[in-house]
Amino acid sequence: MSMRNVVKLCPKRCLLSHFKASSPAIIMSSNNRPISNGVANYQKVLTVDNMNQNIKKVEYAVRGPIVVRAGAIRKELEQGAEKPFSEVISANIGDAHAMGQSPITFLRQVVALCIYPELFKSNEFPEDAKNRAKRILGACGGGSVGAYSASQGIEVIRNDVANYIEKRDGGIKADPNNVFLCTGASDGVVAMLKLLVAGVGKDRTGAMIPIPQYPLYSATLAELNATMVPYYLDEDNNWALDIDELQRAFDEGKKTCKPRVLCVINPGNPTGQVLSHDNVVEVIKFAKKNHLFLMSDEVYQDNVYAEGCAFHSFKRVLHELGPEYSENVELASFHSISKGYMGECGFRGGYMEAINLDSKVKEQLRKLVSTRLCPPVTGQAALDVVMNPPQPGEPSFEQFDKEKRQVLGTLAEKARLTAEMFNSIPGITCNTVQGAMYSFPRITIPEKAVAEAKARNETPDSFYAGHLLEETGICIVPGSGFGQRPGTYHFRMTILPPLDKMKSLFKLFRDFHTSFTKRYQ
Amino acid sequence: MSMRNVVKLCPKRCLLSHFKASSPAIIMSSNNRPISNGVANYQKVLTVDNMNQNIKKVEYAVRGPIVVRAGAIRKELEQGAEKPFSEVISANIGDAHAMGQSPITFLRQVVALCIYPELFKSNEFPEDAKNRAKRILGACGGGSVGAYSASQGIEVIRNDVANYIEKRDGGIKADPNNVFLCTGASDGVVAMLKLLVAGVGKDRTGAMIPIPQYPLYSATLAELNATMVPYYLDEDNNWALDIDELQRAFDEGKKTCKPRVLCVINPGNPTGQVLSHDNVVEVIKFAKKNHLFLMSDEVYQDNVYAEGCAFHSFKRVLHELGPEYSENVELASFHSISKGYMGECGFRGGYMEAINLDSKVKEQLRKLVSTRLCPPVTGQAALDVVMNPPQPGEPSFEQFDKEKRQVLGTLAEKARLTAEMFNSIPGITCNTVQGAMYSFPRITIPEKAVAEAKARNETPDSFYAGHLLEETGICIVPGSGFGQRPGTYHFRMTILPPLDKMKSLFKLFRDFHTSFTKRYQ
Repeated sequence: MSMRNVVKLCPKRCLLSHFKASSPAIIMSSNNRPISNGVANYQKVLTVDNMNQNIKKVEYAVRGPIVVRAGAIRKELEQGAEKPFSEVISANIGDAHAMGQSPITFLRQVVALCIYPELFKSNEFPEDAKNRAKRILGACGGGSVGAYSASQGIEVIRNDVANYIEKRDGGIKADPNNVFLCTGASDGVVAMLKLLVAGVGKDRTGAMIPIPQYPLYSATLAELNATMVPYYLDEDNNWALDIDELQRAFDEGKKTCKPRVLCVINPGNPTGQVLSHDNVVEVIKFAKKNHLFLMSDEVYQDNVYAEGCAFHSFKRVLHELGPEYSENVELASFHSISKGYMGECGFRGGYMEAINLDSKVKEQLRKLVSTRLCPPVTGQAALDVVMNPPQPGEPSFEQFDKEKRQVLGTLAEKARLTAEMFNSIPGITCNTVQGAMYSFPRITIPEKAVAEAKARNETPDSFYAGHLLEETGICIVPGSGFGQRPGTYHFRMTILPPLDKMKSLFKLFRDFHTSFTKRYQ
Repeated sequence: MSMRNVVKLCPKRCLLSHFKASSPAIIMSSNNRPISNGVANYQKVLTVDNMNQNIKKVEYAVRGPIVVRAGAIRKELEQGAEKPFSEVISANIGDAHAMGQSPITFLRQVVALCIYPELFKSNEFPEDAKNRAKRILGACGGGSVGAYSASQGIEVIRNDVANYIEKRDGGIKADPNNVFLCTGASDGVVAMLKLLVAGVGKDRTGAMIPIPQYPLYSATLAELNATMVPYYLDEDNNWALDIDELQRAFDEGKKTCKPRVLCVINPGNPTGQVLSHDNVVEVIKFAKKNHLFLMSDEVYQDNVYAEGCAFHSFKRVLHELGPEYSENVELASFHSISKGYMGECGFRGGYMEAINLDSKVKEQLRKLVSTRLCPPVTGQAALDVVMNPPQPGEPSFEQFDKEKRQVLGTLAEKARLTAEMFNSIPGITCNTVQGAMYSFPRITIPEKAVAEAKARNETPDSFYAGHLLEETGICIVPGSGFGQRPGTYHFRMTILPPLDKMKSLFKLFRDFHTSFTKRYQ
């Protein structure tokens, strides 16, 4: 059997399976000499045993096994499989457009103009969109978004980011040279952690991260072989950040590593809390006192819903505390176009503002980001619109403002509804979703179910989430993917499905939880 | 002096310089208590001494000091500075659009339609562009490029990549499950190297890389703290890859590390050679014999100019060698939309095809790429056009084909011109630019200039490149940024400036080289 024949014989992409089927282990080569097919004999160069062991430790539940299974179920449904439900509801990831949210018209107009400048001739595009696109293209090499930009990002866009930050922070100056545009905020977080991780043994960098946390942090720290120094958020106090707990974690961390960086997610992911002004003050003072580098993940800064809550940027509060803080404490803060009211995850746009960095460290950061050439230019362009949106009096202002308020208003309503609905189900409690895009409800899992999960080598919350998916089509992420106090069980669910779908989702959820609880009572 | 006052006093972004000017070291806080301004006293958490030392070792000359200086000169010129030249000619980086190359119309039409679906109503867009955009959007979450895609890339686009590879390789099957879409090819290269680097001491992974090389490889290996095992390309044989030299490098490498991966760049960057079929066969056999993982950087596969040269993919040649090779040798190959005839660097699109991977390693790779969520979706869409271009009979075929042939034809002419012109300058020799986008000429630098460079702690080729920039405005990259045989000096220059600019560039270059040589004789 020659290779050529095998290729011809297989009508589809089944070369490998065909070969596998053609045992015994001796087959003929194209010139009819017997050869080993090698699949059984050849020792791979790269195996899970000899690969980078840090990568093996990486976990990323937001796209973990439950989500993979949800994708498979969706395909089964498409192929006509019989299920107790007709569709998979993806509530696992903060992906607004995938859940039906419409893009902001103005943002898409500006980016389309940048991509295809022939559109400048069209009367269908408003002047303010054309002006912004012209300004961006004027800053692109050769006037094309197809050119690489500066590695740190296009200069006029970094200026717009600095202006945005200044305005947000009540006039406190922002230096465009401190702004690094990124491939989504994740990219900035990873770059900063990379610089921070050094040392060996007890001197190796420890990073203080909230538990529950967004698993980008634990995944990156695993990859860098750094130590996680977890501090627990206070579930009984709406997931507030307790300074005594920070101190406990820090003291504990010092036993095995050198805690050098404190990561804060505000508004919280997966926990949806919004830090109070006093809390931010305390955290900053704690960081300075303990000589910690601050990283504030503020990608949900536009997503604040609960009455009495407001977003307080670490940068602003740092400055309120006077130059002793504002001139000293090293702070990297992150923002993104993937969340907020625009939800443009696919563009991979974001920025990091890094202040008070040692000038030589900043040089190293610039060099590091240059090796990946530049963030996607279309993402930079989309970010520019968010930083420099239509102003009152401009032709697009009214529509832009309406679309923005509509998205945020609906999210606020769904945030309220989510806590209310979960709290109405016996065995589930849910804190107020003050901000971000998620609830992180706590569930009571019956002892018998816990035992069965353990017997199957699953965490009880994964076991629960798996059953929920198979029985209702609802896809959530088990709390163990984010971390939780031992013996407690949670899950993360987004508030992104459309309102009517959310309502039917809660009905399904209630029925499931009741039946699951009964089954294992 | 209160913070508030400082902010008001400064009309521009001069807060920091203002503070620095306001020595002595005691200033007043907003509540008039004297405080240390701290700039002098505060010990930074993160310094170059305690940061990740691997990052410090990273070098990336393509965006190094010469290029930074070129940017500064450009600004000086804008501000009216007197220079012996009127413009900076950037010949340092493979950035076609920045050098005036026009985008491929069809590609931009498809992406614009994806971004702003209102355009489907327009008669200005051809049907085949609409059909492709519709197909891509149909595969996006919520029908929006603003949704995250699968981490491995959008399925229909992976299918198109597989079809493209099959067609390119004369029908050899490609499995879309082996295709990983990336944020530019760089992203794929980094992901694969990350998996491959493991072990300690003499067991730590060594990676065989060509010298001269594209510095992404050395930079990534420095960051991963892996050992570079350099093999020299044969300058006297038009930068061919010599198997004896591979063997020498491998044997040498084994003394200090465990060589596990062989990286090949074909067509070559910065060297512009195209590997012959026989050469690819030898390399594959060498890899198998020595149990090496193969990485083939094939981003210039469409950029082959010289008569008698053709691109031979490693995948195809692997299959020609029969199942002993095609079923066993682990190969990751890379392609990109940044080069070729489209030159869409800013989109950050590319793919990796990884074959014969251990299935568990592939799972690990999938998990790893999931932590950065997904490659930019607009880059994926642009890649799809390159993988699935207009076909004869489709409305856009003629224009597409004309634009493509025009770009590649001009590049071929400039490739020819480049070698011819450099070889006509005494003291410069240049191999035939068979492919890719660069020449890598060798220069004779007078002893006196070498001595002066060394006295200034510069490499002689950086010294030469610095003078060239200051005296002519031509920006090239010194050969030391790519590696070269000790005692030889080179530079990399792109073939991308427009033809008329290339011609004046060569005149400037000749005059400079003559005068530089005279000065230091």
